[in-house]
Amino acid sequence: MRLLPSLLLAGLLSGPAAAQTAPALKTDSLNLRKIYDEALLRGQSYENLRYLCERIGGRLAGSPQAAQAVEWGKVTMEKAGCYDKVYLQECMVPHWVRGAREKGQIIGNKNKGVPAAVCALGGSVATPGSKPLRAGVVEVQGLDELKALPDAAVRGKFIFFNRPFDDALVEPGAAYGKAGDQRRSGPAEAGRRGAVGALVRSLTAAHDDYPHTGATNYGDTPTKVPGAALSTIAADQLSQLLKADPKLEFELTMSCQQLPDEKSYNVIGEVRGTKYPEQIITVGGHLDSWDLAQGAHDDGTGVVQSIEAVRLLRAAGLRPERTVRTVLFMNEENGTRGGDKYAAQAQQNQEKHLAAIESDGGGFTPRGFNVQASPAVFQKVAAWKPLLAPYLAGQLTPGHAGTDIEPLAAAVHPTALFGYDCDSQRYFDIHHTAADTFDKVNKRELELGGGAMAALIYLLGKYGL
Amino acid sequence: MRLLPSLLLAGLLSGPAAAQTAPALKTDSLNLRKIYDEALLRGQSYENLRYLCERIGGRLAGSPQAAQAVEWGKVTMEKAGCYDKVYLQECMVPHWVRGAREKGQIIGNKNKGVPAAVCALGGSVATPGSKPLRAGVVEVQGLDELKALPDAAVRGKFIFFNRPFDDALVEPGAAYGKAGDQRRSGPAEAGRRGAVGALVRSLTAAHDDYPHTGATNYGDTPTKVPGAALSTIAADQLSQLLKADPKLEFELTMSCQQLPDEKSYNVIGEVRGTKYPEQIITVGGHLDSWDLAQGAHDDGTGVVQSIEAVRLLRAAGLRPERTVRTVLFMNEENGTRGGDKYAAQAQQNQEKHLAAIESDGGGFTPRGFNVQASPAVFQKVAAWKPLLAPYLAGQLTPGHAGTDIEPLAAAVHPTALFGYDCDSQRYFDIHHTAADTFDKVNKRELELGGGAMAALIYLLGKYGL
Repeated sequence: MRLLPSLLLAGLLSGPAAAQTAPALKTDSLNLRKIYDEALLRGQSYENLRYLCERIGGRLAGSPQAAQAVEWGKVTMEKAGCYDKVYLQECMVPHWVRGAREKGQIIGNKNKGVPAAVCALGGSVATPGSKPLRAGVVEVQGLDELKALPDAAVRGKFIFFNRPFDDALVEPGAAYGKAGDQRRSGPAEAGRRGAVGALVRSLTAAHDDYPHTGATNYGDTPTKVPGAALSTIAADQLSQLLKADPKLEFELTMSCQQLPDEKSYNVIGEVRGTKYPEQIITVGGHLDSWDLAQGAHDDGTGVVQSIEAVRLLRAAGLRPERTVRTVLFMNEENGTRGGDKYAAQAQQNQEKHLAAIESDGGGFTPRGFNVQASPAVFQKVAAWKPLLAPYLAGQLTPGHAGTDIEPLAAAVHPTALFGYDCDSQRYFDIHHTAADTFDKVNKRELELGGGAMAALIYLLGKYGL
Repeated sequence: MRLLPSLLLAGLLSGPAAAQTAPALKTDSLNLRKIYDEALLRGQSYENLRYLCERIGGRLAGSPQAAQAVEWGKVTMEKAGCYDKVYLQECMVPHWVRGAREKGQIIGNKNKGVPAAVCALGGSVATPGSKPLRAGVVEVQGLDELKALPDAAVRGKFIFFNRPFDDALVEPGAAYGKAGDQRRSGPAEAGRRGAVGALVRSLTAAHDDYPHTGATNYGDTPTKVPGAALSTIAADQLSQLLKADPKLEFELTMSCQQLPDEKSYNVIGEVRGTKYPEQIITVGGHLDSWDLAQGAHDDGTGVVQSIEAVRLLRAAGLRPERTVRTVLFMNEENGTRGGDKYAAQAQQNQEKHLAAIESDGGGFTPRGFNVQASPAVFQKVAAWKPLLAPYLAGQLTPGHAGTDIEPLAAAVHPTALFGYDCDSQRYFDIHHTAADTFDKVNKRELELGGGAMAALIYLLGKYGL
């Protein structure tokens, strides 16, 4: 039972933050406490998320639900009452639809089908005519192994990419990174080699029957073949049956299709800084989500936290000295068109961006932030650790900040990028599946995250970089 | 996507651990990696826990399920194959049973009952004759407020202790500590003042319909009156209805009873140290649990981790230089008789205890350890942070280590006590309720905890204190 206030002050006055004056730090410490009182006692993230998940649900770019989410985002920001202005920023987005038919089965030598849980990868083409496509299966552990196979072994087959998550890695995100090329490039490479389709083991450490979707990219492949994810149970079963019967076939049916681009929007709320209005701090998450589920942790939590962070500041009576913008980015999952548009507009307007913060790693218990900055700037930020640590957000780690703010970084070079970092053990269990639902989110964990983001904005807004 | 091995070595060679020699630290780092490979790739905690939760379930001291758990513990330790000997240590335990009848309702002025979710507090007496007990209700915010009430306001009433969790506290454990006196002493104080019973708001931040049980203690109160927990929904409803109708009544029925003490056991497995066998490191959790649920996070996770920690060491080829004992303590929840017995036996045998580690805060993602030790010893332990941090277990905080090892500390003064510390936001949502079930446990989070405990035992076993 730690006594937080005393520890906090002890840490402040003796820690690396001692370079800042003690009275300023005491004020900061008290202001952070105000932010967290609001977050933990009167936080609005959880109820906002409930609405987004349960009333709107899955909201892939271009879908009617994405349009509803845009409207919801605007209204929710206006209701939050913390912005000087709320507006939409138009962008064209890809529009891929899953279609009604989606089925997989393993066909053994007695011609009996064993159902296998599958889903189309985002951006995949349908099976020809949206009809069942039956072919033999070649299992590989990755793109390299496919490359080494002779054409004769590949032609006319499904390539089954079955390299599992490396469970020895402490961070499931690192395992995701290590296994992800199969999903992103597997179908393209399979098509290039004359295969009829690609079956990809779901990118997860979980052993269950949820297939995990996610974007696949054909690049300049001349022949596009369908790509589907298999649940880990289905993948293990297919692998096992293949060992007993290398001639078995897989039958895949998918009716997904790419429709013409649709008009959509980033939703933006802005508070003008009192002292340095030209210096902009962006905080955001992505409003779109995969269609299979409610997009709770990916990235409903980031969306509601990005609104809440600004509301918390204002509710705590802390109007920022620098301009703060909440951006609900459209189309992170299969295009990043919203991020691109926000960056292009910033460049065109010759805006000065101090920092950008993204929350897109789930809404679990905070750890801190991944930081992209020069060593000198990182040092400055690291001095804030003792202020953030009592709220479980004191871990500042050099690392990737977020996909939506990457284009902004390239366009106008903010001084630092921050990715909200939280406990990640459960994230890839539900990521891009039908299980990414509101009930997986814990209210306190979520609200603590909004608090962490507000605290960082407060410090950035007051001290700059 | 942090590259852990390189960070690890960087941290080791420049951090506070630099006092230890670099080659030794490199060896330690590699040995910890072996431990975690075993934990993450071949960990057994999760399947052990499944059995304990789903096949045996709730196992309050003195119950047939507790006896089954003792047998299971012994067999599981023997099967783990990592101990030189496995044995039972007899102790007498209290035997309280809930009984078949347990019901609460709020009776308004139209005599209609509104059901209220209740459960008897552990150790409570029944309502007289196990029959419905109906009385008016006086709401208080705590023991002090009860003290200030005149006798006439209290006599013949239910005292309704309704002080909520302080949600502003970052650690729910601190809120538990702050609200807990109502449950522990509320019924005793109510009886002392002439009330007929006590209704206690469940000790949780969750807003749901699960009542949370837990021990209440009558001390030397001459008049024992029944004490029940109300779910937070029921407590809020009762409070609201009371405001509208201060004369409403509550009707409580409970048929619980205290039976004669039963014989039970701690289950102990020991690995003799190769170099300093007389120095003992104890690692444990408690085998008993409340009767309402499966006792998954409280404390099935601590039990399976305490076995797994030793198995991991041996599987990684790391036989400890000091003696290591896994102790599955009996009767933490309502008596600590197992802890008392283990301590008394240690004292009688004049054993030398180097350290004791307890896991009894749930099986969530690791943070590190709470440490009770002298400043000099704490400094020594703190030097291990860079070894533990890559596995999320590098946070060493002065703080309470655990209830079961307190008697040992008083009896034979181990040099240090450690409480396994993990993410705590969800723990009190399910603590002591029917919702503390196996499905709330995440395999990776659980296995990482066993790894952290093994890593600490490895370092204690090699370096001493």
